[in-house]
Amino acid sequence: MEAADDGFRPLDVEAVVEYIKDTPALRALLGEQLEGLSVKEVGDGNLNFVYIVSGPGGSFVLKQALPYVRSVGISWPMSKERTYFEMLALKEHGRLCPYHVPEVYHFDRPMSLIAMRYLEPPHIVLRKGLIAGIEYPLLAQHMSDFMARTLFFTSLLYHSTLEHRKAVAEYCGNELCRLTEQVVFSDPYKVAQYNRWTSPYLDHDAEAIREDDTLKIQVAGLKSMFCDRAQAMIHGDLHTGSVMVTNDSTQVIDSEFAFYGPMGYDIGAFLGNLILAFFSQDGHANKDDDREAYKRWILKTIEETWDLFHQKFVSLWNENIDGHGEAYLADIYNKPELQLLAQKKYMIDLFHDSIGFGAAKMIRRIVGVAHVEDFESIADTSRRAFCERRALNCAKTLLKERCKLETIGQVISVIGETSARLAVEIGGA
Amino acid sequence: MEAADDGFRPLDVEAVVEYIKDTPALRALLGEQLEGLSVKEVGDGNLNFVYIVSGPGGSFVLKQALPYVRSVGISWPMSKERTYFEMLALKEHGRLCPYHVPEVYHFDRPMSLIAMRYLEPPHIVLRKGLIAGIEYPLLAQHMSDFMARTLFFTSLLYHSTLEHRKAVAEYCGNELCRLTEQVVFSDPYKVAQYNRWTSPYLDHDAEAIREDDTLKIQVAGLKSMFCDRAQAMIHGDLHTGSVMVTNDSTQVIDSEFAFYGPMGYDIGAFLGNLILAFFSQDGHANKDDDREAYKRWILKTIEETWDLFHQKFVSLWNENIDGHGEAYLADIYNKPELQLLAQKKYMIDLFHDSIGFGAAKMIRRIVGVAHVEDFESIADTSRRAFCERRALNCAKTLLKERCKLETIGQVISVIGETSARLAVEIGGA
Repeated sequence: MEAADDGFRPLDVEAVVEYIKDTPALRALLGEQLEGLSVKEVGDGNLNFVYIVSGPGGSFVLKQALPYVRSVGISWPMSKERTYFEMLALKEHGRLCPYHVPEVYHFDRPMSLIAMRYLEPPHIVLRKGLIAGIEYPLLAQHMSDFMARTLFFTSLLYHSTLEHRKAVAEYCGNELCRLTEQVVFSDPYKVAQYNRWTSPYLDHDAEAIREDDTLKIQVAGLKSMFCDRAQAMIHGDLHTGSVMVTNDSTQVIDSEFAFYGPMGYDIGAFLGNLILAFFSQDGHANKDDDREAYKRWILKTIEETWDLFHQKFVSLWNENIDGHGEAYLADIYNKPELQLLAQKKYMIDLFHDSIGFGAAKMIRRIVGVAHVEDFESIADTSRRAFCERRALNCAKTLLKERCKLETIGQVISVIGETSARLAVEIGGA
Repeated sequence: MEAADDGFRPLDVEAVVEYIKDTPALRALLGEQLEGLSVKEVGDGNLNFVYIVSGPGGSFVLKQALPYVRSVGISWPMSKERTYFEMLALKEHGRLCPYHVPEVYHFDRPMSLIAMRYLEPPHIVLRKGLIAGIEYPLLAQHMSDFMARTLFFTSLLYHSTLEHRKAVAEYCGNELCRLTEQVVFSDPYKVAQYNRWTSPYLDHDAEAIREDDTLKIQVAGLKSMFCDRAQAMIHGDLHTGSVMVTNDSTQVIDSEFAFYGPMGYDIGAFLGNLILAFFSQDGHANKDDDREAYKRWILKTIEETWDLFHQKFVSLWNENIDGHGEAYLADIYNKPELQLLAQKKYMIDLFHDSIGFGAAKMIRRIVGVAHVEDFESIADTSRRAFCERRALNCAKTLLKERCKLETIGQVISVIGETSARLAVEIGGA
């Protein structure tokens, strides 16, 4: 295809090869050995095309954004400038947390193209690992590390307000925020073209969401926080499909939704998707594996992720207490007990935000446009609906009651109770 | 003085005349009649130089920012780019609320210079009117109008999130926010070079502020809101010195602190400064006028300002319910009772923010760097300290207890009680 006026042309496998030949930086990554090159399109997300390029002398991944939502088509246009923000965020995340972010090798803005490290096998998408029932012993440790470092170091606990405002302004141009606003905070709560759910089983549940005034008021508060609270640079799409894992490696990718927003949105995305994974397990159980042990592992991972995040975030705060961060000046918050009080208040607010956003992310995956493979891969629709309904009810409770919860242990209890209560209802029906 | 490399040179009265001669737009404003021109420097604020230019054929005001804080000197540098933001905000405020904002005639960015409408006598600074005990029957009406319109139309209740983020980014460069962060949210709560208070009377009171953990935790929350919550374009310095009045005209000036921040900061600045005016009245009372009636008028004005603001803001919301504002989509908040619930939640949060910010603004005017003429003009220092202490105690109560208050009437009660309680204590001593 011809290049458009802006220098953009969508690639395909053949065009990728030509592009590499014309790009010295990429040829160098392959050790200048273009013979026997393999190029495979592997994008399975909602938005982009992803090519794995490997040859005898090296490998990398090429990711290209098209000016529309891949999973919907050209009827849903989407700024391809998102690749610029993805590159910015990847580099910033990599700087802050190099062990858990792939390296960026090359960026071509007109082509909306990023070349980055290929996360070679046995790396798989975490969501697929969760569906397969694989335990990742370091997951909580790694993800709490990623979140604590990327969020702390881009917040006013570390930034001066001057550098914070400069960074906020830079990311204000990321139009992908609008997609989140629509698909997370709006569409699930109204009749919307692309909404779908496991019908007819969940017809009533979806309608109940649209008629739940308490829920809608809570969601308005979360949406407003998402739209106008520039607390830290957030990944913006930190679900289990944005994480690649092996037994001992955890890599966060797909940061094109990054902007300065509420920290709880990232933490909630990750925890909420783990809770979805939990509720989907009954759909993957079979006579050889009832998945009960795996469900316990997921709950433990949820609990550890928050607890470790809390611990690491507060440690970073303490280590940087005399730094240039301007939220809590050392000569105002000048006694250990006052510092402790400030941190307690900050962390409980962040906890409530995280649970709220996590719940909103769960709801939208069940009655909104984009569903999760955790449930979609349950072939038996009535069984899938059963799992989804439990997740939905859990999310509603968490969203409405979150400010009464004080510990992650209480969140685990809500998950357990929702799970048990529905089992009883089903049993009694 | 020679122009610097950046085209900036500070003016004085003679240089103003030369500047006008060289500037066709300004000559035109004077009807090309430069004979008999009068130029008077009248700036009495903390930051800038202000010249009234009048001739037989016309008049205007010239305002020039110098690269430091006027009231402190070159030891406290301050970006003169603030004039750019003042111009932006004046124009935007003028567009949204033309009756209460002077027209901008001319802007010279390298010179940090704005020419605007001269608010001719009998316009005086509202603060001076309050000290003189003058009632302004339309003040609450006008200020509620200004605040309701400028805040509503720059919030997500009216903006799409796309235009909101664009506007937020534009104002992120206004470095004057840092001055507010320092003098309002930080310095009063620590030992700081420029802090002062009516000593020795208030030595203990100032120390008590610096040792009040509860207060400091509350102030941290307000500061964080100020720094990262881009709720609407706020004036940023809406005290009674930023308002010019006559019996039937109210004009808001000095918008160089404008940026996207929490709405409550503007509302609080205005209400807080009215409360300061209230507490200063006993210092201005004499045998001919005990100021009791005037104190009642101030309280009535506080109450009316909030009530009218509330009423007008909600009316604008209702009138624009099917507009392009994206905070509360009409097809989600789709029933009158749900709409009402949403508005109630929004307005009570805004009320609490306003009272909190108002109280913080009061405190900083008594123990921080910049004081208010309301108190400064009370020559008898023990009497001044008596008035200031009451205001300080009122502010502390409001800041700590604001979330228990639900109506402006309850705020008025707190003011009354603080006033009465201290009178009793003094009487009993």
